[in-house]
Amino acid sequence: MTSPLEYRKDIDEALERFFVKKSQGKKGVELEAIVKLRDFTLRGGKRIRPIFMLAGYWLNGEIDRRIIDASISLELMQSYLLIHDDIIDRSDMRRGGPAFHRMFNFDEQINEGLAIVCADLSDAYSHEILLNSEFPEDRLNSAMKIMAETVEMTGIGQLMDITLPLSDRVTEEDVIDVHRYKTAQYTINGPMKMGAALSGYRKIESIDNYGIPLGIAFQIQDDILGMFGDEAQLGKSVLSDFKEGKKTHMILYAFELADPRDANYIRERLGKKEIRMEEFEKVRSIIVESGALEKTRRLADSYYQRALSSIDSLTDDGEKRAELRKMAEMMVKRAK
Amino acid sequence: MTSPLEYRKDIDEALERFFVKKSQGKKGVELEAIVKLRDFTLRGGKRIRPIFMLAGYWLNGEIDRRIIDASISLELMQSYLLIHDDIIDRSDMRRGGPAFHRMFNFDEQINEGLAIVCADLSDAYSHEILLNSEFPEDRLNSAMKIMAETVEMTGIGQLMDITLPLSDRVTEEDVIDVHRYKTAQYTINGPMKMGAALSGYRKIESIDNYGIPLGIAFQIQDDILGMFGDEAQLGKSVLSDFKEGKKTHMILYAFELADPRDANYIRERLGKKEIRMEEFEKVRSIIVESGALEKTRRLADSYYQRALSSIDSLTDDGEKRAELRKMAEMMVKRAK
Repeated sequence: MTSPLEYRKDIDEALERFFVKKSQGKKGVELEAIVKLRDFTLRGGKRIRPIFMLAGYWLNGEIDRRIIDASISLELMQSYLLIHDDIIDRSDMRRGGPAFHRMFNFDEQINEGLAIVCADLSDAYSHEILLNSEFPEDRLNSAMKIMAETVEMTGIGQLMDITLPLSDRVTEEDVIDVHRYKTAQYTINGPMKMGAALSGYRKIESIDNYGIPLGIAFQIQDDILGMFGDEAQLGKSVLSDFKEGKKTHMILYAFELADPRDANYIRERLGKKEIRMEEFEKVRSIIVESGALEKTRRLADSYYQRALSSIDSLTDDGEKRAELRKMAEMMVKRAK
Repeated sequence: MTSPLEYRKDIDEALERFFVKKSQGKKGVELEAIVKLRDFTLRGGKRIRPIFMLAGYWLNGEIDRRIIDASISLELMQSYLLIHDDIIDRSDMRRGGPAFHRMFNFDEQINEGLAIVCADLSDAYSHEILLNSEFPEDRLNSAMKIMAETVEMTGIGQLMDITLPLSDRVTEEDVIDVHRYKTAQYTINGPMKMGAALSGYRKIESIDNYGIPLGIAFQIQDDILGMFGDEAQLGKSVLSDFKEGKKTHMILYAFELADPRDANYIRERLGKKEIRMEEFEKVRSIIVESGALEKTRRLADSYYQRALSSIDSLTDDGEKRAELRKMAEMMVKRAK
């Protein structure tokens, strides 16, 4: 029995096959779009979503070529959303290379226009891949429904993510909602449920008890790493979330736990583009010394434990249970 | 027997029901997105795509509530593409009101970001509506495939549309290709084939012989109206296509048929933002006097005739044949 975690290479190969096939007989701007989407999609990425789709499938069967081929639909969907994301955030870099809208050499308006449309193409490909996979039609339709629901929830999370930094009254619950919608459903729960639907697994809804808390724990951990991790491993500046004004749990807890002068020190600098490294160091030490970091870590751990405790209800197979624990651990106890 | 053309009101009512249901229990930015999508979608539009979906369905059955409810998926898809289109073209107006990204009051970056994501939400809704309609799984699946194919072709047409004005060597065939991808498949052929798939119609591919040439004739006619029509009825300036540098058949034929000095007069002004009305009048008279307009009209008519001649192969029902002729006529012999 091979763990879902060991299929990363197979997923990359399936992606490569898809792009080769898609580019056959194509020319002009269509070919250029396909070549750029291939480069962007294969350039990086941990293939977390396809891997969780395999894990869901695995709850009711063994991993085969069909599900590997279907799982790449989630990487095409990921490219679609990342391309739009980078346009929205005006980001220039992604996956160690230029953001998609920086891969064209026209003027800014045309580059962005082409990128928006190429992303929409990637979305159409993602549907096409899933629809053309060799599963019974009722299972396919149910996986498609979960996919539509997942894109919908991701969009709502994305809207909240754009508007929350503009609000003065952000609660812990708001932040958890964004994590639930934007990360948990999209990265773990939706993919896993799609795989489960394709395998004919009967208790699809019970996956929520694993996928949602694990996704939330993953995102909280991601926020911690975003501020305290190693820049080389992260591939981005530890200052970027703070400059964007992201109200993470660490920030909210620091407002609550730090002495008022220190809390104000953070408040006055959050979201400012020109913060100096010494100031950021002081922000970090307030977060550590007030206990906000520790409280955030405990919060992540409580969601992680909740996910672990759901595993036994998902499968009776001891080896698969162990594997789901390992996958949970990998998502939360990671350095990048 | 009621003609598909008479269901516009029912389609609007189905849209209204969808938005009411979707907004139930929603709050915050999600509710705001739904309300704005409702306003944008119901504010205008001729419902051409749902109507052609009904027409396709009608080839193998009578129109019922199920297909009307399913047909609005195409209006949600249309909102998705129009919102992205207006961001790409930096258009401020749509359907007699502000473009979607002008419906927010944040800064430009945030307005555009919210609009990109709301469009993506509308796309997810469109899939959701179709997937939740009450048709057999195999028919749904086949309609979904046609939808993905249609979005894909529309995207390719869109990429060509963005890049063609930048090229010096645009051929008649290139322009027909854009019409085929961006208009014919998206506006007529795809919707009609989706409806046919949902009704279990057997000769789905033969619809291409009606939908594609009719869509091309429609787009050529649209280009003519765009330059020679009535601004009040069009809802946009007759100068806008010309300022965008659109190489329509009229323009290509004028390059070919007008005397070289006149052809140059057009070439020097095409795509310039500051063209005066007298200059544009001269461009139009060159197009008329060189015979370019007449040649364009004949081209549209030849595609229109091709569509008409395919009707008998689609159905044996005399009344339905007459209706398909009427729908073709409505698309091509229109004033706006």
